[in-house]
Amino acid sequence: MKRKIAAIFAADIAGYSRLVAEDEEETLRRLASYREVVDDFIARASGRIFNTAGDAVLAEFPSAVDAVRCAIDIQESLRTRNMAYPPSRQMSFRIGITIGDVVERDGDLLGDGVNIAARLEGLAEVGGICVSRAVHEQVANKLSVQFADIGAQEVKNIPTPVHAYMVAMRREDGGYGKPQLKKPASKLAAAPV
Amino acid sequence: MKRKIAAIFAADIAGYSRLVAEDEEETLRRLASYREVVDDFIARASGRIFNTAGDAVLAEFPSAVDAVRCAIDIQESLRTRNMAYPPSRQMSFRIGITIGDVVERDGDLLGDGVNIAARLEGLAEVGGICVSRAVHEQVANKLSVQFADIGAQEVKNIPTPVHAYMVAMRREDGGYGKPQLKKPASKLAAAPV
Repeated sequence: MKRKIAAIFAADIAGYSRLVAEDEEETLRRLASYREVVDDFIARASGRIFNTAGDAVLAEFPSAVDAVRCAIDIQESLRTRNMAYPPSRQMSFRIGITIGDVVERDGDLLGDGVNIAARLEGLAEVGGICVSRAVHEQVANKLSVQFADIGAQEVKNIPTPVHAYMVAMRREDGGYGKPQLKKPASKLAAAPV
Repeated sequence: MKRKIAAIFAADIAGYSRLVAEDEEETLRRLASYREVVDDFIARASGRIFNTAGDAVLAEFPSAVDAVRCAIDIQESLRTRNMAYPPSRQMSFRIGITIGDVVERDGDLLGDGVNIAARLEGLAEVGGICVSRAVHEQVANKLSVQFADIGAQEVKNIPTPVHAYMVAMRREDGGYGKPQLKKPASKLAAAPV
């Protein structure tokens, strides 16, 4: 078994099924065009897409700093594109990033780290980015971006709570603000990992 | 700047200056022979030595799991070799391991991660291994080895305390035991990183 540490990036589109149900052709056409943006930023950051399924993208990056920077670039670029559409037709990714010591097999990556990235993605705001403590620890003093500590989160099929941070995305007024929590505080687990 | 995440491994010999002062030729001869063991285990775990200075070895590994396994193999192998010598002539490495998002330049690795690995090495027992929380998080459920949580440690020139764990090494009687703390409890910082 070949193991390696990588930054694992999981993205998918918020409300994808609804968007497809409402207008399949337009949604698929826009997905293809947004994926060009996503794939291009990933490639520029030396990332590699190791799996896709519908609107979902799984990628690995040699550096967590580069992965977070790439995710911010993707979200800011797509936010601009979405401005041309009414709220109900906006198509935004959620992104989750962790660091995992994973197993590589025939180009696919397997292990905890991949599952945790997908769970972090589920915790992210629409158009936002959620990272694990391991990522925060590596990037906090290397990127000039703000993080909001949302504490230890209980996530499906992961035995220990995952301590997570939201990346503070640029607000409509051009400033940066603390993102809203998706879950009410009562759902946050008490003990950090 | 090319960045990457790697497991960073720092090792050096406890009491090296004293050993050299007492018997230079024998110490240097044994260092060369012990380094063969160290280098061989590092290569087998897909590690790469990126710097050495006297008795100090800095290496990177693609996987933290493989790095910790390699460090255990090194310590167990050298422990057996040392048994042929009286305590005052035993030559044992301390090993520190962390995960760092580091910068690679002309084959050398630079950044926080390298400094932290060296500080963890300073915290390790003679013949022991000390790892950061980032390493513990990645390997705890993947290796059948015990860890002792020694909490957040204040270390030289690193602004935030480093949360560290000792790897429980095999005892003389063949079992595994919790290692002794090198520093008295009063020197341990209260707040985890």
